[in-house]
Amino acid sequence: MMRRWIGILLLFSVLLSSCSGGQQTVTPASSGLPADAAALAAERGFTPDDVYAALKTYMPSGELDPYIMFSSGGQSGQVLVIGVPSMRILKVIAVFTPEPWQGFGFGGHGDQVLEDGYVNGYEIKWGDTHHPSLSETNGEYDGQFLFINDKANARLAVIDLRDFETKQIIKNPNAINDHGGAFVTPNTEYVIEGPQYAAPLGWEYASLDDYEEKYRGVITFWAFDRMSGRVIPDKSFQMELPPYWQDLCDAGKKVSDGWVFCNSFNVEMATGGIELGNPPFEAGVSRGDTDYLHIIDWKKAEQVYQAGKVETLNGMALIRLQTAIDEGLLFFTPEPKSPHGADVTPGGEFIVVGGKLDPHVTIYSFEKIQQAIAAGGLETDSYGVPVIPLDKVMEAQVELGLGPLHTVFDDKGYAYTSLFLDSAVARWTLGGPYDSLNPEDGWTLVQKLPVQYNIGHIAAAEGDTASPDGLYVVALNKWSIDRFANVGPLLPQNFQLVDITGSGAQMKLLYDMPIGMAEPHYAQIIKADKLNPFEVYPQVGWDPGTMALHPNAITSEDEARVERNGNVVEIWMTVLRSHFKPERIEIQKGDHVIWHLTSLEQTRDATHGFAISGYNINLSLEPGETQTIEFDAVMSGTFTYYCTEFCSALHLEMLGYLLVKP
Amino acid sequence: MMRRWIGILLLFSVLLSSCSGGQQTVTPASSGLPADAAALAAERGFTPDDVYAALKTYMPSGELDPYIMFSSGGQSGQVLVIGVPSMRILKVIAVFTPEPWQGFGFGGHGDQVLEDGYVNGYEIKWGDTHHPSLSETNGEYDGQFLFINDKANARLAVIDLRDFETKQIIKNPNAINDHGGAFVTPNTEYVIEGPQYAAPLGWEYASLDDYEEKYRGVITFWAFDRMSGRVIPDKSFQMELPPYWQDLCDAGKKVSDGWVFCNSFNVEMATGGIELGNPPFEAGVSRGDTDYLHIIDWKKAEQVYQAGKVETLNGMALIRLQTAIDEGLLFFTPEPKSPHGADVTPGGEFIVVGGKLDPHVTIYSFEKIQQAIAAGGLETDSYGVPVIPLDKVMEAQVELGLGPLHTVFDDKGYAYTSLFLDSAVARWTLGGPYDSLNPEDGWTLVQKLPVQYNIGHIAAAEGDTASPDGLYVVALNKWSIDRFANVGPLLPQNFQLVDITGSGAQMKLLYDMPIGMAEPHYAQIIKADKLNPFEVYPQVGWDPGTMALHPNAITSEDEARVERNGNVVEIWMTVLRSHFKPERIEIQKGDHVIWHLTSLEQTRDATHGFAISGYNINLSLEPGETQTIEFDAVMSGTFTYYCTEFCSALHLEMLGYLLVKP
Repeated sequence: MMRRWIGILLLFSVLLSSCSGGQQTVTPASSGLPADAAALAAERGFTPDDVYAALKTYMPSGELDPYIMFSSGGQSGQVLVIGVPSMRILKVIAVFTPEPWQGFGFGGHGDQVLEDGYVNGYEIKWGDTHHPSLSETNGEYDGQFLFINDKANARLAVIDLRDFETKQIIKNPNAINDHGGAFVTPNTEYVIEGPQYAAPLGWEYASLDDYEEKYRGVITFWAFDRMSGRVIPDKSFQMELPPYWQDLCDAGKKVSDGWVFCNSFNVEMATGGIELGNPPFEAGVSRGDTDYLHIIDWKKAEQVYQAGKVETLNGMALIRLQTAIDEGLLFFTPEPKSPHGADVTPGGEFIVVGGKLDPHVTIYSFEKIQQAIAAGGLETDSYGVPVIPLDKVMEAQVELGLGPLHTVFDDKGYAYTSLFLDSAVARWTLGGPYDSLNPEDGWTLVQKLPVQYNIGHIAAAEGDTASPDGLYVVALNKWSIDRFANVGPLLPQNFQLVDITGSGAQMKLLYDMPIGMAEPHYAQIIKADKLNPFEVYPQVGWDPGTMALHPNAITSEDEARVERNGNVVEIWMTVLRSHFKPERIEIQKGDHVIWHLTSLEQTRDATHGFAISGYNINLSLEPGETQTIEFDAVMSGTFTYYCTEFCSALHLEMLGYLLVKP
Repeated sequence: MMRRWIGILLLFSVLLSSCSGGQQTVTPASSGLPADAAALAAERGFTPDDVYAALKTYMPSGELDPYIMFSSGGQSGQVLVIGVPSMRILKVIAVFTPEPWQGFGFGGHGDQVLEDGYVNGYEIKWGDTHHPSLSETNGEYDGQFLFINDKANARLAVIDLRDFETKQIIKNPNAINDHGGAFVTPNTEYVIEGPQYAAPLGWEYASLDDYEEKYRGVITFWAFDRMSGRVIPDKSFQMELPPYWQDLCDAGKKVSDGWVFCNSFNVEMATGGIELGNPPFEAGVSRGDTDYLHIIDWKKAEQVYQAGKVETLNGMALIRLQTAIDEGLLFFTPEPKSPHGADVTPGGEFIVVGGKLDPHVTIYSFEKIQQAIAAGGLETDSYGVPVIPLDKVMEAQVELGLGPLHTVFDDKGYAYTSLFLDSAVARWTLGGPYDSLNPEDGWTLVQKLPVQYNIGHIAAAEGDTASPDGLYVVALNKWSIDRFANVGPLLPQNFQLVDITGSGAQMKLLYDMPIGMAEPHYAQIIKADKLNPFEVYPQVGWDPGTMALHPNAITSEDEARVERNGNVVEIWMTVLRSHFKPERIEIQKGDHVIWHLTSLEQTRDATHGFAISGYNINLSLEPGETQTIEFDAVMSGTFTYYCTEFCSALHLEMLGYLLVKP
């Protein structure tokens, strides 16, 4: 392994009281510092930056990370919760993929959440999660909810941050897949779900020969109700778009509140067919020099929807493309070829677009966009959408390098753009109102920090809010190659934590974090103290599905019982260290079983599992939780149910027998 | 947060060339060490131990962990692969639970592996993984295979460490659940699967009134074939045991090679029934002062099996209890109440048993066991099994504290026992041949290190081999309570890394690692350089299912094609950055689709995913890999298939359309 700077570090300490002088040192013998620490740094060949990074990221036992990162798991279908700067995974939240440790999708209330996300009744038990989005109030993360999309099947999930559980999965009835979601409006009025690959609306069949006529994009504005913690389809609406493969979106904020911006990357309307001698998609989609930045007035669109100027398609209110044009809801402007993301600056003044095949980022002025729209007289694309000339709205272009992709912001007027092909993070300066926040001139490249390797997205502390924090960015690298021990042909990704506290060219790499369970797409980082989850459920008998008392909760062991009604056996069971009550349940093969379990625990961390051998059932019952499982006793035999959590010294003794007579 | 020692650390460096003197220091200005590192340690209130721990566990980018820990995921049904000492998760291996990032259970070859583990044809898509066991040669980990059990459904899985993929899941036909597995014999002749809760053999129904007569334990010796990398049921055998709830096992080694030892914890034969006024299991199982350590002569049992002195039950060769007694295969000796684990010392001389409800560990001498068996004249239990009196075989007892549970070993004659109720790791000295390896007397408690909190099992570097390494143990703590940021009522576990390099009372806590995706039961730690996985598959067209060339592999894009035979559509597809060939596939609703995909990649880390919208399919195609998926086109419509890995700058363009005509 190459170390650029080989040295020996000797570590000395002085008491805090003598710190003000700053230079007083004591010998190792009197310092209380183990001499082996100094020897260790020497032995490991640490550079000064290594020592700094080790001390910056280390969390002594019990010290809490000041930031929490919510990362998509990509095609794992889950969300990762990571402490920053220690880069330790605090939790994996089950979202689209069943996960038995959390008891999600193995008999408990998660089953219905998953079922609600099936496609035309067909079981889907995974998802390709892309863009997590924290709920916002006034453009600031408020720590209440997290939304995330499933690109593979055009679905949206809602996670309640009171208990970090997925409460809702909703299938988009008209899109086949999505990418530009989830993104929230500044007060979480709507969760935006943009599409990806064009298709006939509503999953219909249509020949690719009819692409221009029958294939479409569609953007969805899912209305969110904070009280119930649910997306409300009946208050949501969609807008039809040309089949240009809309990609990522970002909502305007502050001066641009009420608008949303999405890039696109197949204005060429290529339809592939390499096997027919056509250019493959990768070439066909990239023929043109520009695609279209989509500029959408969602507040006006909401009025159009409320005025009833919509059609209903598969139960969803849809603003047709012609209506969107007629009502002045949709505008285009050119953007450099094959862009990936449209990122709004903290104050909402600019939209930054990176073109993967263009070395620049292009910065659009929202004010100029407004002026151009007001001025009118715009040409249109072939579908009739007004197109604003680039020179009317471009504020600046900054040449960064190869493969600029995604841009995030800090509190010092810097922007950070991931460079996929260069494998680097570019730090550059914003102009306009941000120019005075740092020593450099506006719209200038300041530093390119190499990362390992192939960075996709990038996340910044409070980075998507109206007031980013600075301090850290995380590079979401796709390839790790030689960074970690070999664990076979499927390699982990590599999250690299970067220190951005210094100004100018002072970005430093702090930590490499392997992600060997997921291919995270994007992440958001929130101040930990904005989160306020339950430590235990508010009262015994709590149903996490409804976030209210469960109708079949029981609050004492005296109420535990089994009742039979015909071939329906209903069980009310209590769960408390270290026994279930009842411990023996005898039924007949063919019985229908309804089994309510209530944890009487009120002690933090006193979680019980509940598994039934052979029946594909496992629950996680957190303190106070009630859940109901329901199944048919299809197999006769002698089965055990037992606690799958090591809940006490007698956890192995926490079991019962389910006897199913033939 | 409490810091025991508040100080300021100033860090100075000297060049390597001036190290020999050891005392020469330079000022920060000339050291090259950033002054902010010193300020940082001060600001964070680090103790000297914190600095040591930070430097000990930090991995600069690209530096590889010297040890790899394979941890069960408990009821997540997976295996975690963790770098030591950085405690970073390098990979989660999908085992019993489908996992889409790896494409395990979503259309590819993992589907059959999972199906083979179904129970009587009923789908089981999770597991309660407990004891990972690395394959061994001469009692040393050889880095070739990993085995792990599913306690919930009595299943065993085989993971091939060439590609870190699960190759086989096998259902035990006669046990309902297991706990004492997986444990290998010293040359991996057999993988041992002990049972847990007694039940009628073969999943039959029997009333609990007939417990003593009809309920049984059963230990399984699964024959393992290294060439095929598979357990061979036809060469495996079982032994019937009394219904005493056998728990964990360990194979003898060196002097005790050929024997296996299992503890048990319900010699009382309690059957629960708190709702009937009976003592609950937790009380009934703990009434007696002792349970029985099971002592099994597996080499002799193998001869008995090969001699045909077996019955066949549900296709498995079974040595009946009476045969085991008659042939001298099975012996008991008392062990302190409610023990959890029987751990054999590196040289095989002693077996250490911890009783959860007894403050001692009890050490048994294998030599004395042999003498007692040879002497004969033993009393029997009620089933006729010879019982050796404790005083004939006990070598020592060491009082450690509350809740001793699991014991591991190092290279300096120390043993390490987890104390669940004390929340501590006890270091104590072995006697006999180990006495001379450390300064302390044999059979003496040396140190109790507090851990946070409720430690279950404990793992040591190369700890279960004939030559443990020392250096590290990991405390697998069940509760974390206040150690990490609040992520809701379901808390992570806490793995704590402990430095055991110093002798005597010098154990030090190094690192807290949250596990928020699993409830790991046990782990094994292997030297990283013993592993030698593929970087890419050996040739294009490799089938990970058979570890050989796939019969439907194609090696060039020219061979890509679609063929129709009646309503069967067969596709041979190539996958290469950044396109699939073909890109358009048009079929009829109701067609049966057989789809072969070959990755033509040969570059390390150039993995492609393959998802079909709406069809619950996602594969991971590593470089060179071929897989086949098969499904019925049940839904008409316009679907996309696309690469779910961010494989290149044009990964979004890597897709095709699957058009299903109504």
